Amino acid sequence: MPVLVVGSVAFDTLKTPYGQANEVVGGAATYFSITASFFAPVNIVAVVGDDFGPEQLKVFEGRRIDTRGIERAAGRTFRWSGEYTGDMNEAKTLDTQLNVFERFQPKLPAPYLASDFVFLANIQPTLQLAVREQLPNAKLVGLDTMNFWINGTPEDLRRTLARVDVLIINDKEARTIAGIDNLRRAAAAIRKLGPSTLVVKRGEYGACLFQENSIFFAPGYPLEEVHDPTGAGDTFAGGFMGYLASAGDLSDGCLRRALIYGSVMASFAVEEFGVSRLLRLTRSEIDARFNEFKSMTHFEV
Amino acid sequence: MPVLVVGSVAFDTLKTPYGQANEVVGGAATYFSITASFFAPVNIVAVVGDDFGPEQLKVFEGRRIDTRGIERAAGRTFRWSGEYTGDMNEAKTLDTQLNVFERFQPKLPAPYLASDFVFLANIQPTLQLAVREQLPNAKLVGLDTMNFWINGTPEDLRRTLARVDVLIINDKEARTIAGIDNLRRAAAAIRKLGPSTLVVKRGEYGACLFQENSIFFAPGYPLEEVHDPTGAGDTFAGGFMGYLASAGDLSDGCLRRALIYGSVMASFAVEEFGVSRLLRLTRSEIDARFNEFKSMTHFEV
Repeated sequence: MPVLVVGSVAFDTLKTPYGQANEVVGGAATYFSITASFFAPVNIVAVVGDDFGPEQLKVFEGRRIDTRGIERAAGRTFRWSGEYTGDMNEAKTLDTQLNVFERFQPKLPAPYLASDFVFLANIQPTLQLAVREQLPNAKLVGLDTMNFWINGTPEDLRRTLARVDVLIINDKEARTIAGIDNLRRAAAAIRKLGPSTLVVKRGEYGACLFQENSIFFAPGYPLEEVHDPTGAGDTFAGGFMGYLASAGDLSDGCLRRALIYGSVMASFAVEEFGVSRLLRLTRSEIDARFNEFKSMTHFEV
Repeated sequence: MPVLVVGSVAFDTLKTPYGQANEVVGGAATYFSITASFFAPVNIVAVVGDDFGPEQLKVFEGRRIDTRGIERAAGRTFRWSGEYTGDMNEAKTLDTQLNVFERFQPKLPAPYLASDFVFLANIQPTLQLAVREQLPNAKLVGLDTMNFWINGTPEDLRRTLARVDVLIINDKEARTIAGIDNLRRAAAAIRKLGPSTLVVKRGEYGACLFQENSIFFAPGYPLEEVHDPTGAGDTFAGGFMGYLASAGDLSDGCLRRALIYGSVMASFAVEEFGVSRLLRLTRSEIDARFNEFKSMTHFEV
């Protein structure tokens, strides 16, 4: 089943202890689409400027990604510049230029309206809600957000949360939304706001899946080197939602495997700058790392 | 098979956001012994002062703990006072009075020399080595240490590390010993110093087990409330070593289950102040939580 994503496509300028990259193609919808396309057909909704040409569009080519939903607007593409130091768990934003993204009004091409799986990447909650309402029959709607909206437009976010099935955020964001430090109690509070499933990303410590009657943990893959953490969260979401769309099933077993696939994909993304590792990734590499996760977590009673 | 532990027995004064406890029986060897005795017979080697009477010794009674190795010296028992605030991941030491522990020279009663499993809790590395050398035929020797020795007597610690099988420390200590931030590379460096197995405790994020050809992760148990983290690490070690001693087997499968039992026991210890939760713990509670760990980590391929 196809998965639809709404979010940013951007030019990123990145600096980490391993080097730097200038104006490479990035953005949440980019990382998500490339990743999810390993599992299912993807419909992408985004906006780019007139500086985003055929050369940049190549990152989506040769994959199951329908790019008819990438609108071209007059002006420059969204630009973000960030630096990672120390433990690289958080980026320091050096510069943000919203450009055409500032007036982004997501438009869904007619064929996209049949998308069963939907991921609303981190944009203004009212825009997320407007997209969600255009897809009343979606089987599963996932949402990301950030502290900027959690603190800045909490009422808008609440209205959006009430209409989604899965919230995929990091541990700090979970604590902030709930106003509770303890993760288990924060998860219970968030699930009362709407999403029946909560996925909490914990960086190098992995991820956890909170459902009504179960909690499931995936460890972080123990990489020897993290070259660039940019896009790890959106890549995680792409693996999670992409796998669910491919399975077409929302059972507990399926959600658990989805959490592992999200972790697998994020672990590859950070091995190189930007989307470069994802672009040359193969299905057999994905399967091998999935099996590694199994061997790193399983034990016999 | 019996497990021998050498370490501190103390009076602890504890303060956390949930309350406080004054001069309760604590110390690494105390937490370890009570915990390990759920799985195997325990031989404890420690020193107390003349203020440690029958009332205090009750914590060891009615369990498979041989206390002939608890030496009584003239003077006061070791006292520690600490406070936990915020995320409670680290104690702030308010006061330390070594008292009789300052001149502790571990003496092993003759029957103890047949102990197959040995845990050298956190004391001066030269004392740990002296005990280890008295048990040349031990099947498995585990070691704990702390930054005070890692930074203060690195050469002594290296000599001790060369003679043990399992090092059980927290992530900060692992990074300091190796001088490497990346945990996987730090683990590889530490394993070259002697211990074939490295167990890294990561607080609320669980624990990991590094062996020659495998890495295994246990999540932290998602408690809704942590009342007192004191002794969590020694309780973890007691569950880990105690289970291994009961199994008498050092296979990969056994070490994995040991890591889970360590996590299970530590998760109980922190539910109440001091050793009180451990004292009223039952085997069926342990088994139930072990099964919860399985359900929180397992998935089908």
